[in-house]
Amino acid sequence: MTTGKINVSVENIFPLIKKFLYSDHEIFLRELVSNATDATLKLKHLTSIGEAKVEYGNPIIEIKNDKEGKKLHIIDQGLGMTADEIEKYINQVAFSGAEEFLEKYKDSAKDSGIIGHFGLGFYSAFMVAHKVEIISKSFKDEPAAHWTCDGSPEFTLEPHSKTERGTEIILHIADDSLEFLEDFKIRELLTKYNKFMPVPIKFGTKQEALPKPEDAPEDYKTEYKEVDNIINNPNPTWTKQPADLNDEDYKNFYRELYPMSFDEPLFNIHLNVDYPFNLTGILYFPKLGDNIQIQKDKISLYQNQVYVTDNVEGIVPEFLMMLKGVVDSPDIPLNVSRSYLQADGNVKKISNYITRKVSDKLKSLFTENRVDFEQKWNDIKVVLEYGMLSEPKFYEKAGSFVLYPTTDGKYFTLEELKEAIKDTQTDKNGKLVVLYASNKEGQHSYIDIATAKGYQVLLLDSPIVSHVIQKLEADNENLTFSRVDADHIDKLIAKEETQISKLSDEEKEKLKNSLEGIVPKETYTVQLEAMESSAAPFIITQPEFMRRMKEMSATSGGGMFGMGNFPEMYNLVVNSNSDLASTILKTEDKSIQEDLVKQALDLAKLSQGLLRGEELTAFVKRGFETLK
Amino acid sequence: MTTGKINVSVENIFPLIKKFLYSDHEIFLRELVSNATDATLKLKHLTSIGEAKVEYGNPIIEIKNDKEGKKLHIIDQGLGMTADEIEKYINQVAFSGAEEFLEKYKDSAKDSGIIGHFGLGFYSAFMVAHKVEIISKSFKDEPAAHWTCDGSPEFTLEPHSKTERGTEIILHIADDSLEFLEDFKIRELLTKYNKFMPVPIKFGTKQEALPKPEDAPEDYKTEYKEVDNIINNPNPTWTKQPADLNDEDYKNFYRELYPMSFDEPLFNIHLNVDYPFNLTGILYFPKLGDNIQIQKDKISLYQNQVYVTDNVEGIVPEFLMMLKGVVDSPDIPLNVSRSYLQADGNVKKISNYITRKVSDKLKSLFTENRVDFEQKWNDIKVVLEYGMLSEPKFYEKAGSFVLYPTTDGKYFTLEELKEAIKDTQTDKNGKLVVLYASNKEGQHSYIDIATAKGYQVLLLDSPIVSHVIQKLEADNENLTFSRVDADHIDKLIAKEETQISKLSDEEKEKLKNSLEGIVPKETYTVQLEAMESSAAPFIITQPEFMRRMKEMSATSGGGMFGMGNFPEMYNLVVNSNSDLASTILKTEDKSIQEDLVKQALDLAKLSQGLLRGEELTAFVKRGFETLK
Repeated sequence: MTTGKINVSVENIFPLIKKFLYSDHEIFLRELVSNATDATLKLKHLTSIGEAKVEYGNPIIEIKNDKEGKKLHIIDQGLGMTADEIEKYINQVAFSGAEEFLEKYKDSAKDSGIIGHFGLGFYSAFMVAHKVEIISKSFKDEPAAHWTCDGSPEFTLEPHSKTERGTEIILHIADDSLEFLEDFKIRELLTKYNKFMPVPIKFGTKQEALPKPEDAPEDYKTEYKEVDNIINNPNPTWTKQPADLNDEDYKNFYRELYPMSFDEPLFNIHLNVDYPFNLTGILYFPKLGDNIQIQKDKISLYQNQVYVTDNVEGIVPEFLMMLKGVVDSPDIPLNVSRSYLQADGNVKKISNYITRKVSDKLKSLFTENRVDFEQKWNDIKVVLEYGMLSEPKFYEKAGSFVLYPTTDGKYFTLEELKEAIKDTQTDKNGKLVVLYASNKEGQHSYIDIATAKGYQVLLLDSPIVSHVIQKLEADNENLTFSRVDADHIDKLIAKEETQISKLSDEEKEKLKNSLEGIVPKETYTVQLEAMESSAAPFIITQPEFMRRMKEMSATSGGGMFGMGNFPEMYNLVVNSNSDLASTILKTEDKSIQEDLVKQALDLAKLSQGLLRGEELTAFVKRGFETLK
Repeated sequence: MTTGKINVSVENIFPLIKKFLYSDHEIFLRELVSNATDATLKLKHLTSIGEAKVEYGNPIIEIKNDKEGKKLHIIDQGLGMTADEIEKYINQVAFSGAEEFLEKYKDSAKDSGIIGHFGLGFYSAFMVAHKVEIISKSFKDEPAAHWTCDGSPEFTLEPHSKTERGTEIILHIADDSLEFLEDFKIRELLTKYNKFMPVPIKFGTKQEALPKPEDAPEDYKTEYKEVDNIINNPNPTWTKQPADLNDEDYKNFYRELYPMSFDEPLFNIHLNVDYPFNLTGILYFPKLGDNIQIQKDKISLYQNQVYVTDNVEGIVPEFLMMLKGVVDSPDIPLNVSRSYLQADGNVKKISNYITRKVSDKLKSLFTENRVDFEQKWNDIKVVLEYGMLSEPKFYEKAGSFVLYPTTDGKYFTLEELKEAIKDTQTDKNGKLVVLYASNKEGQHSYIDIATAKGYQVLLLDSPIVSHVIQKLEADNENLTFSRVDADHIDKLIAKEETQISKLSDEEKEKLKNSLEGIVPKETYTVQLEAMESSAAPFIITQPEFMRRMKEMSATSGGGMFGMGNFPEMYNLVVNSNSDLASTILKTEDKSIQEDLVKQALDLAKLSQGLLRGEELTAFVKRGFETLK
């Protein structure tokens, strides 16, 4: 038996790292600026604990573009490296200096914001550069060192005359990557990845107006000075304490995040937890309105203020993907190139925390300013309803802030609603019947009839509401939902008293026969009802169950039990106590009777939005005829 | 100056590979089955060129689950490895035996389907196993070897008594990965990743009915035998030649791909190219209908018959993401874990090829069976229209097969349409006016009027059609589109002849004043027109430009110029030659005149779908009143 050690040769692994590890070449700049930031933060930590006896000062990171010389410089004023340290940290692929630092100073440096992790980022330089130089002067009393490598695993290392503390990386940009020598491209990358990093990043200069002197003459011309152009905001709002921030601060940060967006957020949720995992961030509820086109990918994920991705799937619960904002956590396990989430128990915990935090915030918004919350309801309901359906933990809490608006502008919680309608809308079997409409305009005549009876009619018009209703019925005994046009009102909420019929059974039979001879059987079932004589003579209704199943099928991606393909079936409810019913009954001339019934049916169809196309054109033409 | 070589230690890189390289632990099985497949394909190649003097036979790959022993076995009958080869290929991380093989046999083995690439896949075993064994017997006349490694970089290597050719990998599954010892999980993974791999994969056995003997007695009971349960189809349809396949084959493969789907594809496009890149695949046009909820991620990407991902963004042009099917190419550059596409010039070429192939196919479908193509139009139009807008190369070709259906069921290409309407629909300024409707039912009365004049009315009802129209107008001089309700018909296509007015200018002035006193100014602009006396007395129109801009704004994610927020404005076109106009003019009683105008306005609003809510309820109530 032989034993040995698996080995890995740099010749084999180096090309893979250069070419394949990172899917996107542009992230080289993120990686190098992250390293520069770490070098600065490490110095900050060492000076703060007295281990480095130098002045920390106000270090910045500078990016210099030498387009002519085809070179890009990344210069920091951090702790620097000695020749020995370069040997140790640079020449050893996948040895992470950041991890070593965190390990060494684990008690004090826990919250230092050190970014590095895998010890691979530096090598991403070779994705865009054919040659890379490092010139570094350590804060220690040792000469500067100059490292050069042309992308083969060979390097040279020699002394250098640099005297200022810090590290300069010089990338000799390869011919296939010259785009990275364009100022606009560099600015774009810095803005995308480094906009909120903790050390100021300088890229070029800009003009800044000098203050107008007090004794300025009338024709004073503003003077300008050249100042450093700092790309980033090193102290983004999410890193601050909620107690130190007001509404205006959150709105300003929204505009900082979305400078091209003109909308205002409805409200924000500041995430801030450090046990059992670290997570900060701010989520914003945007105005969604009826725009149910779910726009995802508006929440950005950061790690220690470094932008990672706009794909927060798995981290943020699905129903909150419609929100906007920022989530920052060093504890989210990503793969080496940070482009991919690793399956991990922590991730589920984070998602649950966000759900809980959001429901707590909603509850407090509701409690603190109910009027304001009601006004925002229409813009947030889709998110909340989707949450009720998809997150059991959210559903549990939703009862205390989810609202049910009525067609006349009142807002109830479910418990309030039950209380408000229990005396009037309990039917003779003890069922509490909630009436609702899906369209205030389209179902106006039905709403009118119900409200005239003193009933509350909810306005439930979001696209997934049929699923919500289904769930509420399942979880609340003796509670049932009916759309106002599901039957005529005395059947929707059946009471003990019955209306006396004006017609004899014989007359009713005759009327029914006449009607059934005229009304198309395949679509309408004639249903004679003895109602108040003033009630509408003809109403078209559609039973709740079938309609709801069809709606649920349509919003579940179609095809559920093939419900979507069922033909539309309606009931034609005829008020046998109405004058029109009597008139129809008494009309002997079959042709006149038919015209009467058809016109009445057309009117009933109009109320239900069913008179369309050719039928409508003919109806309107008849209308104009009678007018002239 | 010192020189040296960057080095990488296995202690540093091994944990990264084990933990972070692959985002998803489950892919270990894909990698190991891929290796087993390569070992088999290599043997096939060597026997075919006479370099291996052994019987190739009918090798299979077997997966054995030893749940009790917490072991998973992957066994192949491929070329096997000697102890020396294990040293070379296994003990050296990132040394790819597959690449070496392809390099050595580059002339003959180009199309052998070898999968391996980076030499890393084997190590994914350590994501789920605390210990891995390899027992391998080479086809060469050398003893079998037994390699063992516990996940530290230490290994042992010793002889083994195995005599059958091939390699057996034994995974000692770690306690946090016991899910991979469940049969259903293994079956799920094999089905997901290996369903179409080229070597048969056996997992367990199944019962197969024996044929009924000819002399079977009447009470014969079917007998069964135990047979290998082969998980995969080694010869999927896309790898075959299009000439050898018929319609039924393609449909069967669709059902193989989507066993849970009940729909039938409309047609398929077989992709098959080997220069300048290798690409095969089959794309299906599903029945989309009005379901414009874009369902992406229905096209699967394979590499050499190994499933990679359902995310083909970048490879398949965006407008074709709504299709279903399979794309297989060894030339698509993916990162090490195959989870991420690398930016690459080849990819754009592939995308362009797919666009071209799809347009060629559409053209030939149109040419070969126009009637059939027309019947499918409604189901494919959204894809094609989106393609016209998003892919210039597709737009160029689209002229020869994109159809413009009329409300009465004819289908024109753009050129045919121009030809068909040029005599009748050229206005007095030489503009060719295309009339269209967006809703056959809702705009019925307007369509009626236009077709009565002998005009063609297109039915353009897909959600992005306003953008298409805008583009067609920009690219076709003197062509203009107008919806049928954009003005009254004699203005939409203005001809030289004018209708003589029955009313004097004075009367017209008086009529207009009366109307403007009654009709709400903020919504309707009264427009008197001398039309045929039989034409509708009141029509509501909405100018084309404003309406189209609003529609375009709505489908571009909203907000474009804030058009969405403009109030709805209409014209009320009153036919001054109509009897009703005369009646209104002559009615002295202001209250009766007002009732007349209001009823007429209600009728016009009905035709345009504008009579809603309370107004409609009142209208219907009045209607019932007059009936009784």
